[in-house]
Amino acid sequence: MKQIAILGSTGSIGQSTLSIIRKYPERFRVASLAAGRNTDAAFEQCVEWRPQVMSVATEELASSLASRLKAAGVTGIEVVHGTEGTVKVATLRCTDFVVSAIVGVAGLEATYAAVQAGKPVGLANKEAMVAAGEILTAAARAKNVPLLPIDSEHNAIHQCMRAGEKREIRRLWLTASGGPFRNLPLREFDNITVAQALKHPTWVMGRRITIDSATLLNKGLEIIEACRLFDLPPNAIKVTVHPQSTVHSLVEYIDGSILAQISVTDMRLPILYALSYPERVESDLTFDIASLGQLNFEPPDFERFPCLRLAYEAAEKGGAHPIALNAADEVAVEAFLDGKIPFTAIPRTIESVLQATPETHPATIAEVLALDREARQAAANEARRFAQHASTAR
Amino acid sequence: MKQIAILGSTGSIGQSTLSIIRKYPERFRVASLAAGRNTDAAFEQCVEWRPQVMSVATEELASSLASRLKAAGVTGIEVVHGTEGTVKVATLRCTDFVVSAIVGVAGLEATYAAVQAGKPVGLANKEAMVAAGEILTAAARAKNVPLLPIDSEHNAIHQCMRAGEKREIRRLWLTASGGPFRNLPLREFDNITVAQALKHPTWVMGRRITIDSATLLNKGLEIIEACRLFDLPPNAIKVTVHPQSTVHSLVEYIDGSILAQISVTDMRLPILYALSYPERVESDLTFDIASLGQLNFEPPDFERFPCLRLAYEAAEKGGAHPIALNAADEVAVEAFLDGKIPFTAIPRTIESVLQATPETHPATIAEVLALDREARQAAANEARRFAQHASTAR
Repeated sequence: MKQIAILGSTGSIGQSTLSIIRKYPERFRVASLAAGRNTDAAFEQCVEWRPQVMSVATEELASSLASRLKAAGVTGIEVVHGTEGTVKVATLRCTDFVVSAIVGVAGLEATYAAVQAGKPVGLANKEAMVAAGEILTAAARAKNVPLLPIDSEHNAIHQCMRAGEKREIRRLWLTASGGPFRNLPLREFDNITVAQALKHPTWVMGRRITIDSATLLNKGLEIIEACRLFDLPPNAIKVTVHPQSTVHSLVEYIDGSILAQISVTDMRLPILYALSYPERVESDLTFDIASLGQLNFEPPDFERFPCLRLAYEAAEKGGAHPIALNAADEVAVEAFLDGKIPFTAIPRTIESVLQATPETHPATIAEVLALDREARQAAANEARRFAQHASTAR
Repeated sequence: MKQIAILGSTGSIGQSTLSIIRKYPERFRVASLAAGRNTDAAFEQCVEWRPQVMSVATEELASSLASRLKAAGVTGIEVVHGTEGTVKVATLRCTDFVVSAIVGVAGLEATYAAVQAGKPVGLANKEAMVAAGEILTAAARAKNVPLLPIDSEHNAIHQCMRAGEKREIRRLWLTASGGPFRNLPLREFDNITVAQALKHPTWVMGRRITIDSATLLNKGLEIIEACRLFDLPPNAIKVTVHPQSTVHSLVEYIDGSILAQISVTDMRLPILYALSYPERVESDLTFDIASLGQLNFEPPDFERFPCLRLAYEAAEKGGAHPIALNAADEVAVEAFLDGKIPFTAIPRTIESVLQATPETHPATIAEVLALDREARQAAANEARRFAQHASTAR
């Protein structure tokens, strides 16, 4: 029986993780949960799962949740809050496995604490690996704890890497759906609307990640994540555009063999894989090969998707640069979603911020967070500049 | 340094194996060779490779080769002949690895002898596994020697199986190019000419295997081979028609993940894999993912390709049935290539022979060979019947 802690239990990955735990009660049990501001969902999770500890965003939310639980006669759950609370959830002694699914850099400290406490971590929080990958992987190596990717691409690579040794890998191939603008001519990129950008062809996801899929910055973050997670240089990570999103990624070995992983597009599969690793567990997440139909692969267009190039550059420099890439993108996407800057100003904002980013390598999570704040500030200034420019142009 | 013995050194797989050994002189060396009737090629191989032992088909050919070598001043090579000679090549003490590439059941005794002598075997001889798979795998298990498949499909499966445990496999998917008649309407099958059947869309191969690819009997043999090699029941082996022959086969795990192997269509790759296993060795047999283009997968048509059904039935019954399937097919294909029977009489011949095949399980290679001879006789009779029928119909 594995005791699971979930950081980000009310989010999409958190809920999918709970659906897996619900399905395999003989294998997994909820140890503790960290939610955010959604105390209604947190309350319901407390009722259903009876975690040892439940963390929410603020002290106020925590005391309101605690009263509600008391009124409902639900006892024995310690309600905590804030970063300290999340860290507590991540490091509880009885926990065997931590699912890190708090979006953005917010989950960083708790994820680091889990690794330091020797807990195997399932990483659904891409930004953690992008911003603090060097620190996290060094800690994981020192503590000899596995970091298991919970996203379809890196999970696919993790599976394909089992067919050989790390030194036998020539390169990794991340598949990209190509997003909604795969076939849009470059000259029309300036006129992309928010509604157009939010229509992802194959996955239903949050707003930021959907825009990141449209700019391919999402794939850029995955390039950096792959470098850190699998300890490979950026030029060993390639991207291939595969609109069907059926092949989740590939590993090319030095002998010329390429291993690919194929499955349904359902996050419960990488979650189940991470929770049960090194075992595999029977599931009904079946993919029908007979219906595989047609698969296409084509090289990505670096001209229409400059975010890819920016990501490679940030990966190459390391240190503060991936942090700035991620932070600047989050700010720029926000500005785009608010209708303040055009789609093409997203990569431009990121590029400006990267150019001003110092060549430093943070040694602690606190330094990572400080660099993240600086980059956000710089990005906000840049985005304002592009917004003024856009409104002047109108 | 691995000392390699090659059974069938002048054939296509034998020559490809030698080209691999030529390329990696620091890793592999020729221990001994078994050729057949092509003593010109055998002579040249003796000159280039200086094997400890060279075996040819008959005593006459052996003495002629020995004289020729003596005249050329090539000394130190023991020239032997016949089954006994091939067995000697397969079991030489200094040999670390045996490539079994004699087509048909001819290589069976030597392959079995190699396993009995504790030599790891690279199996390019599909018929050996079909006719005597139960005996060969039992011996390999008893001696704890690996049997490594040297054909693109089973080699792909061997690679994909490394991503999990055997008990975690739900089923295997063998890819089939579908042959030249993939899209031919059933009513036109009676009029298929030899020339049409010899045109294989993706692989250049020998005549029998090309016809077997057109009837899909080849895939049927591979189903049986997979059952034996990977110790799985016939209903766990599926076929998917994949005209591009780029994905060489797939393994579906119980969690819903499917691993696929992709590479160039070049037999040197599975040969290199088998020779260097468990290591992988750098090669220039590179497949360009960017040029992967379009891949198609569709279910096979059991009505137009009855050989598939016959193979599943033979696999299910085991024992004498796979032997009869293989033997009857070889005879029927020969009759088709000689213009004696129509294309559609190939499966009919096999079916008649299978219906008359006894439900026995041979315990020795000698019994396998006896059953093989009986099935050939029965198939010759059946083919004659179809030939008369065809000439009467004209």
